[in-house]
Amino acid sequence: MARSRLTPERESELYAAVLDLLREVGYDALTMDAVAARTHSSKATLYRQWGSKPELVARALRANKPSDLSEIDTGSLRGDFREMLERTDDCQMEKDSALMRGLAHAVHDNPDLHRALRELLIEPEMNGFEEVLRRAVRRGEVDAGNPALKLVPHMLIGAFVARPLIEDQPVDHAFLSVYVDAVVLPSLGV
Amino acid sequence: MARSRLTPERESELYAAVLDLLREVGYDALTMDAVAARTHSSKATLYRQWGSKPELVARALRANKPSDLSEIDTGSLRGDFREMLERTDDCQMEKDSALMRGLAHAVHDNPDLHRALRELLIEPEMNGFEEVLRRAVRRGEVDAGNPALKLVPHMLIGAFVARPLIEDQPVDHAFLSVYVDAVVLPSLGV
Repeated sequence: MARSRLTPERESELYAAVLDLLREVGYDALTMDAVAARTHSSKATLYRQWGSKPELVARALRANKPSDLSEIDTGSLRGDFREMLERTDDCQMEKDSALMRGLAHAVHDNPDLHRALRELLIEPEMNGFEEVLRRAVRRGEVDAGNPALKLVPHMLIGAFVARPLIEDQPVDHAFLSVYVDAVVLPSLGV
Repeated sequence: MARSRLTPERESELYAAVLDLLREVGYDALTMDAVAARTHSSKATLYRQWGSKPELVARALRANKPSDLSEIDTGSLRGDFREMLERTDDCQMEKDSALMRGLAHAVHDNPDLHRALRELLIEPEMNGFEEVLRRAVRRGEVDAGNPALKLVPHMLIGAFVARPLIEDQPVDHAFLSVYVDAVVLPSLGV
């Protein structure tokens, strides 16, 4: 794919428009026509650059997550989690939470979206997480055989989904800090 | 409301049909017309008995959760969690997981549904949970000030939502048992 034809600025602009549409109308109602209209580009260009709607959406989501978690290395696991939270502001968290709600449903009905998300977003994110956790194991903070090591993403996704559902409150730094200290770190024995 | 006009059997039948429709088409596409057609009843009857679609859906979901968690009292918190799992079979868990995915999105756009769910399903469920946890505190298994006491539902919802999303695996007894032992009990200090 000749992705070089778009400037990085144009690409970012396009991805931002896709995410806005995703939050406004959801995945099912998001059409390539709507993306073309919103971004003043042709559908032919969109298909040439991204191949399909699931791939365009997955790449837009990936571009929205620019920071590489594996770079975070403060010297303690608690510090690394703090740093992850610092990198995202409350407004961005609410937006991520909205996307997660919409996508958890959509991926179930759209295997192509699920595959694209897994390859382009979920696996790179998991790898970054695993690197952070691996360093904690090497420092001796976490036991290498602790079964919670594989369940950290599940705990965090729970915080994002359950907070608005149960308490009707947005997910923010204050809540996630409490959650990390009360749930994630104790389950890892930290 | 003259709910007595329906026999309990007829009511269960109707609730089961509502949940089937909910899984098939989702909340937004579920219409009172479709419920009436599927259950061979009149729309007037549905509105007279339940008042509105959000209330009908919330009551159907509540009826689907017949066991009162607060009755569970095996003498240990680990035993109580085991008993909760025993009461639900794998097939029911997959169905619950599908409903949760669909509803987490729908409640965000439908405040009436959210309110009805909170009153009829979430709060009674939370109360049952709290009773089980309160007994663990009274037995001295959990410290009364442990901040994870308020976060157990978040952890469990995370297991239900993240398992299919990340690992493309259904939620089942085996996974939930590992999750309870690796995440829920350690965060509670058990």
